[in-house]
Amino acid sequence: MDQGEKTIDQVGEFGFIRSIMKGSVNDPEKLIRSIGDDCAVIGPYEEKVLLITTDLLLEGVHFLPGKIRFRELGAKAVAVNLSDIAAMGGIPRHLFAAIAIPRGMLVEDLKELDAGMKDMCRKHGVNLLGGDTSASHAGLFITLTVVGEADEEGVLYRRGASPGDRIYVTGTLGDSGAGLGLLKGELTGPNEIRERLIAAHNLPVPRVETGRLIAESGLATAMIDLSDGLSSDLGHICEESGVGARIFREHLPLSEALKTLCGANNIDPHELALSGGEDYELLFTVPRNNMDSLENQMKEQGHPVCKIGEIVRGKEARLVSADGTEKEIIPSGFNHFTPESQ
Amino acid sequence: MDQGEKTIDQVGEFGFIRSIMKGSVNDPEKLIRSIGDDCAVIGPYEEKVLLITTDLLLEGVHFLPGKIRFRELGAKAVAVNLSDIAAMGGIPRHLFAAIAIPRGMLVEDLKELDAGMKDMCRKHGVNLLGGDTSASHAGLFITLTVVGEADEEGVLYRRGASPGDRIYVTGTLGDSGAGLGLLKGELTGPNEIRERLIAAHNLPVPRVETGRLIAESGLATAMIDLSDGLSSDLGHICEESGVGARIFREHLPLSEALKTLCGANNIDPHELALSGGEDYELLFTVPRNNMDSLENQMKEQGHPVCKIGEIVRGKEARLVSADGTEKEIIPSGFNHFTPESQ
Repeated sequence: MDQGEKTIDQVGEFGFIRSIMKGSVNDPEKLIRSIGDDCAVIGPYEEKVLLITTDLLLEGVHFLPGKIRFRELGAKAVAVNLSDIAAMGGIPRHLFAAIAIPRGMLVEDLKELDAGMKDMCRKHGVNLLGGDTSASHAGLFITLTVVGEADEEGVLYRRGASPGDRIYVTGTLGDSGAGLGLLKGELTGPNEIRERLIAAHNLPVPRVETGRLIAESGLATAMIDLSDGLSSDLGHICEESGVGARIFREHLPLSEALKTLCGANNIDPHELALSGGEDYELLFTVPRNNMDSLENQMKEQGHPVCKIGEIVRGKEARLVSADGTEKEIIPSGFNHFTPESQ
Repeated sequence: MDQGEKTIDQVGEFGFIRSIMKGSVNDPEKLIRSIGDDCAVIGPYEEKVLLITTDLLLEGVHFLPGKIRFRELGAKAVAVNLSDIAAMGGIPRHLFAAIAIPRGMLVEDLKELDAGMKDMCRKHGVNLLGGDTSASHAGLFITLTVVGEADEEGVLYRRGASPGDRIYVTGTLGDSGAGLGLLKGELTGPNEIRERLIAAHNLPVPRVETGRLIAESGLATAMIDLSDGLSSDLGHICEESGVGARIFREHLPLSEALKTLCGANNIDPHELALSGGEDYELLFTVPRNNMDSLENQMKEQGHPVCKIGEIVRGKEARLVSADGTEKEIIPSGFNHFTPESQ
């Protein structure tokens, strides 16, 4: 059977889909970065560059009907796009929304979705510049495109990490993955913890200000946001930079809520921190000589960060435990096209 | 019953949806035009501005499964976005694609879709800068965002028309609407004509070069592309410019293919020219004193245009027949949310 006669789910290779839809450059003028980072980068214009990112959110794939309030969904849809701008050190400026709306959707729900989007835009001084709406025969489909600005010299790419650089993250990891587990009923926990972790999943905070401070410091070499999970996103840094990494298991920042929940459910919180996904924290690399300056600057500005590992020669990302044992970190990237994934 | 408890199709007002999703400006810096035109306009950057437009194409709403080849669909999806850039006199530069792919789609069809998109990008020197893909539980959903460039002083808006200006269009009108009628089986015709009109519907040509020449001439005052149909799109020019219009029925440019088909099917080709939609020709206005210069310039450059009417005081657009009788032109805009529309 010819491959062309197969259907997408029979082939089931995410890499294949990616290869089909990957970029093609026909005119490189004013184009700095096409693909391979959180955003495309165009310019420079007066020493500024524009960062552009597009994300697709589908009912039943990226969000679960009935598991998130429409106001949260609107805010989250914007937040995940702002996070891509933050990951390169940019300032988000303009948002474009294309929304396919099921005919049976309640007007009140649509208003809440709209209000959630506008809440998040207002919080970050982002303009909602219209877009397109249509009726959907199926579920709710949201595509957002965000345009950000940055100084040409201040943009952080995935490709800048070198052996010897230390690896840092913002915030705590794994909370969002635990929240999803609670929403799906795979985990259980007391109400207070439950609410906090579900909020981490449904209402992530894009690290726009932190990302800008990291980029402006001039002390970091590469950055990415943690959308697919540390195991996958660290892999992107390694691949683009041509390096390997060692992550120290005991250094992964875990919230008390996550530790409590995992204790009660008898699961390892480090696994969620590595592979839970959707934390929307930033991961970045810093040369050894810049470590102290960066840690001090970030602490003084009220944006503490946590060192979790180091960049090494090679290709592999490895997890190092307290007893010195090591194992390879396998990317847990979500493949929408395999029959097993929902 | 509270309006909020109603569903979208019970309210069925396209204007309401538009009002919900309309823009909101939180930081006007480097923002020239938010909504109300074919594109948002940001900048200026070194006397250049960027034009940005987003369009949603849904299976069953914007295209009919089995009625268009995937290669044509890919090309058309790009073309309709390039047309929005053309409508403001800009040069399209970068494309972002977000595509929800049904699991059952043939790999070969996806390759054709991709090839069609890339064909159209190559033809216009546009870079495809990636985007996002996901599995769809329902049909094929395509959202494209195009970024274009223009000189700040050279952009044509919808709002620039004044009483006395003449109204021009490029190409011929109604062919695409006739093609859709043929595809739906509502019209019949001989093969040669059938193929030509269906091609006008499935493979429209964005008037990028013509739009740029019109804008560069400095002789026009307003411009829009004909996506929803002359009756609707002329209405947008009138509304944004605060004027009325008179269109001379006998001046509407009709192809021989359209006239033959309409004769055989006993329908009025002028109706299709006014309300057929999806011609993706340009409509623009020119002050009386610039008419001759513009017509000569466009003819010399191999982009002939056709004068179809004039801008007048007031609000109404009216159709004037050869015998002097007049009637109001009612916008035929497609409402995706009313139960009657498919």
